[in-house]
Amino acid sequence: MRRWGVKVSGRSYRTIWLNADGWGVDVIDQRWLPHEFRIATLSNVGDAATAIRDMWVRGAPLIGVTAAYGVALAMRRDVTDAFLCEAAERLRATRPTAVNLNWALARMLAFLGRMPEELRRDAALVMAKKMAADDIACNEAIGEHGLQLIRAAQEKRGGAPVRILTHCNAGWLATVDWGTATAPIYKAQAAGIALHVFVDETRPRNQGASLTAFELGQQNVPYTLIVDNAGGHLMQHGEVDLVLVGADRIAANGDACNKIGTYLKALAAKDCGVPFYVAAPVSTFDFSLTEGRLIPIEERAQEEVTYISGAAANGEVVT
Amino acid sequence: MRRWGVKVSGRSYRTIWLNADGWGVDVIDQRWLPHEFRIATLSNVGDAATAIRDMWVRGAPLIGVTAAYGVALAMRRDVTDAFLCEAAERLRATRPTAVNLNWALARMLAFLGRMPEELRRDAALVMAKKMAADDIACNEAIGEHGLQLIRAAQEKRGGAPVRILTHCNAGWLATVDWGTATAPIYKAQAAGIALHVFVDETRPRNQGASLTAFELGQQNVPYTLIVDNAGGHLMQHGEVDLVLVGADRIAANGDACNKIGTYLKALAAKDCGVPFYVAAPVSTFDFSLTEGRLIPIEERAQEEVTYISGAAANGEVVT
Repeated sequence: MRRWGVKVSGRSYRTIWLNADGWGVDVIDQRWLPHEFRIATLSNVGDAATAIRDMWVRGAPLIGVTAAYGVALAMRRDVTDAFLCEAAERLRATRPTAVNLNWALARMLAFLGRMPEELRRDAALVMAKKMAADDIACNEAIGEHGLQLIRAAQEKRGGAPVRILTHCNAGWLATVDWGTATAPIYKAQAAGIALHVFVDETRPRNQGASLTAFELGQQNVPYTLIVDNAGGHLMQHGEVDLVLVGADRIAANGDACNKIGTYLKALAAKDCGVPFYVAAPVSTFDFSLTEGRLIPIEERAQEEVTYISGAAANGEVVT
Repeated sequence: MRRWGVKVSGRSYRTIWLNADGWGVDVIDQRWLPHEFRIATLSNVGDAATAIRDMWVRGAPLIGVTAAYGVALAMRRDVTDAFLCEAAERLRATRPTAVNLNWALARMLAFLGRMPEELRRDAALVMAKKMAADDIACNEAIGEHGLQLIRAAQEKRGGAPVRILTHCNAGWLATVDWGTATAPIYKAQAAGIALHVFVDETRPRNQGASLTAFELGQQNVPYTLIVDNAGGHLMQHGEVDLVLVGADRIAANGDACNKIGTYLKALAAKDCGVPFYVAAPVSTFDFSLTEGRLIPIEERAQEEVTYISGAAANGEVVT
């Protein structure tokens, strides 16, 4: 099966792609989902930095690839070492705790830094495209591995839908394509396995409600949106066969750090004997950290808790 | 110290009281909090049933007392056995899983049923008032017991504020006065103990955000509103000294059932070695159930997850 992007209103999209002009970078501006599906064009490194910092794009793998394209946009303007360093630093500062961001920038710097300046403009774009393709291949591989776990659960369920709980959005929208935690789900759907996904709404920012529910709905995967508090109750009552989540960073000892609330679900899964899996690419590992408690946690603005946006009855988006 | 209701804009209120006409029953219509402070007058048993079913009032103890006043309102109109039974059944059906509701109705039926009809009109009102007073006395006693737990935590903190996590609203607004889980907090505040309360926003319905944060703020107790996912993280990082929650029902073996998400916080408290206390009156025990898994769970409308109400920038309340 060849698959190219999740379908939105019947058309398939990746989350990031080259604009038809062959140079600008188009992204899905995820701030407006699920109410509006908007595409934004990034024309320079400043646009790319804004898109990462203000979460037009989010999700560890997609942040990394967006940063790579951001470096490519910078090289379009100025191929000097000075501008390369400045662009990398500017992109790095947008989400200081995102390990995939550092990983992608290190890869771009190593590749471009050893190269004569006159090659950098084209080479940067080729490398960014390759990193996007690598992300897709990696997620497909995660999907194939995870499919085996879902098949195992299917055998125990005897034909009834396999019930999967997920937290936050480790989906297509968090990567270039397929997603990490959702890749096994999409692979299982393609393999004809009956599924039902419980989607934590994932406060604050509600990425589960606004992103995961959106993409599963577009892909026709049956799901139920639940409040973050409900997952433990469902597990206690034997209504979850496995938990599949992504990760923001993984320490050398395997401790995984993910959107807040993941720990509570992991405790409940352990207490209830429900298998709990973290789906993540190698780029999410940070071997410089020996254990999870060393992973820095991003603290964002308190308005993300005290304010919420949604569509009012008249269709207008209000805060 | 004598205390009469939590202060709202400087004036002290209970959550339910006799109207100045000596018969109608006034309640705080909690649906509008924290955006508006509205008082509603219940004039008949139908009003009382609506107030409970549609959650103008909520919280196990307050539901029981409102039902008792509802029976009193019914007796004002018709003191026959037939009408008494009909009123009790009507009130019972409003929140079928609320054990305090059954407890209060059983108490009213036992008291009034054995009494000549001509006494019922006045006796029902006296009994409802007594049940309200009993609730206040009970919560004060919970406060005194809980104060000892907070004092113990204070000694370990050596003068720094005692950090308490609470879930949902087991506060003044869930009872006639004082609250259950908040009674120790208000007692500790009165005793001059420095406190900081972490308030879970408590999805769905956000009772933590809209009710607990409101009443702590009115009472000048320092608090931080957190998303439900954050409690585990705080406990992992040693930022919580004790957890204090209420209960909707407690089985004979001590298993406590409370607003969804309490289980996840209890698992995290155990994992992190944080003391976890359930504050509840005797009326919340259901000795007919041997263990917690027999406690029925109320399932409410899915709109409570998929819709949210709040104040827009212009002050208008929108959904």
